[in-house]
Amino acid sequence: MRIEFAKGHGAMNDFVLVSALDGCPELSPDEVRALCDRRAGIGADGVLRVTYGRYIDTWTGDPDVLFMDYRNADGSLAEMCGNGLRVFAKYVLDEGIAVGSSVQVGTRAGLRSVEALPDGRYKAAMGPARVSDAPTWTGLDERRFLAVAVDVGNPHAVAILKPNESIDALDLAEEPDYDQTLFPNGVNCEFVRATGVGQLQMRVFERGVGETMACGTGVVASVAAYARSLPPAAQLVRAQVSVPGGLLEVELGAEQAYLIGEAKIVAHGVFEVNN
Amino acid sequence: MRIEFAKGHGAMNDFVLVSALDGCPELSPDEVRALCDRRAGIGADGVLRVTYGRYIDTWTGDPDVLFMDYRNADGSLAEMCGNGLRVFAKYVLDEGIAVGSSVQVGTRAGLRSVEALPDGRYKAAMGPARVSDAPTWTGLDERRFLAVAVDVGNPHAVAILKPNESIDALDLAEEPDYDQTLFPNGVNCEFVRATGVGQLQMRVFERGVGETMACGTGVVASVAAYARSLPPAAQLVRAQVSVPGGLLEVELGAEQAYLIGEAKIVAHGVFEVNN
Repeated sequence: MRIEFAKGHGAMNDFVLVSALDGCPELSPDEVRALCDRRAGIGADGVLRVTYGRYIDTWTGDPDVLFMDYRNADGSLAEMCGNGLRVFAKYVLDEGIAVGSSVQVGTRAGLRSVEALPDGRYKAAMGPARVSDAPTWTGLDERRFLAVAVDVGNPHAVAILKPNESIDALDLAEEPDYDQTLFPNGVNCEFVRATGVGQLQMRVFERGVGETMACGTGVVASVAAYARSLPPAAQLVRAQVSVPGGLLEVELGAEQAYLIGEAKIVAHGVFEVNN
Repeated sequence: MRIEFAKGHGAMNDFVLVSALDGCPELSPDEVRALCDRRAGIGADGVLRVTYGRYIDTWTGDPDVLFMDYRNADGSLAEMCGNGLRVFAKYVLDEGIAVGSSVQVGTRAGLRSVEALPDGRYKAAMGPARVSDAPTWTGLDERRFLAVAVDVGNPHAVAILKPNESIDALDLAEEPDYDQTLFPNGVNCEFVRATGVGQLQMRVFERGVGETMACGTGVVASVAAYARSLPPAAQLVRAQVSVPGGLLEVELGAEQAYLIGEAKIVAHGVFEVNN
């Protein structure tokens, strides 16, 4: 079996894109794992299957909307991926599958909008970031950090370090401890410090994955948590976040958070399964 | 700039292949690094540039011979790669660049011959494996192993463990200690045990790289060292070696060692540099 693919990344979060505008190919978990295998395949964090809502059983919205059918590298289904949204939008605009400067994208977490900015970057609506008033904690390197619980469709615990503390020195090889009563299904743990006005540095341990180069929802959660930590007069609506994979920007709206960053398509090709 | 490529692997040692039969593209170190980047590029252990001897300044042999211009993922030149040879041969035969069941391949370590076997595997002549009579040692996990020094164009120290010792339990995250007087330029360290008659299990720490899935010269060195450790009557001329990346076979000749294994081409495509 031959699968046409493209390869792309957003802040080094990388994807194999497969066009399935007529519903084919469907991609079995084995085929997803084969594509994402970094040695025996193309290699990626996940597959973005490009299709329409009508081909997704669980989609109850507009059947004609483009749908980002995201699969994790292990073959499982995933709801949403902030970096993937930008790469998906660049791909469908580059390929002429969508036209204009804005793309509506169906995801398993609902409809999302992505805008192509004049500077070449992409701005993705991530839904609201809901900050909890009750403090929580994370534990790392025998230290315990005060953390802010933020829901961006998935759960986050954001520890805000002092500006003079080192983020680089943290050892994220092992999963941080967290409040298992508050997060029975696990939590993504962010470690953040301010490096200037509206400028943050972040590292993240994604639950079930490990440390990653850039977690889109984690970047949004970090800015939302940091904004809440400021005095009431200091309203933060826009911040740049430096992550290991690059630089991302967040715009906080009342009902919507936006994630802004680059998206790259680096290759097109044909993959031969089981050759 | 656009670069046509194929992706392939031998025992999970993976390569980007670039056809340059007219001498182009030349591939700068930056371009090699971009191709081999596992997130922002295609991703591989190295690039196999497919060209002719006449385009290689240092090649003094037949200008019409196919030349495997191997580059490491970091952009540097490399002399030879046993797994790469098989993948190179499969590629040039699949593409019709060479015909027949045997391919002569120029490398920076000299001319090598690769045969396509009827069972679909490839058999590469690796040059002689020279076993030293003087014992040496390697150190790992606070243990010191007796080792055999073997030269297969590059230096190896092969530690032969007892059949009931575990190879899987070794911690190869850090480079093993070795005799720096004997190996002033470093050494590849193999850890080997016999699992049956003519059957070995091997793990390897490649100098300057770390633990790898399959080091072709290391597999040859391991079999040569093991053969030497047997009583004189027990002549070993053929052995199967299980490595993390798969199963390889070695045939020991008087003046030539052969490495036999599979080779896969999994994708073809176009890479866009600096898009």
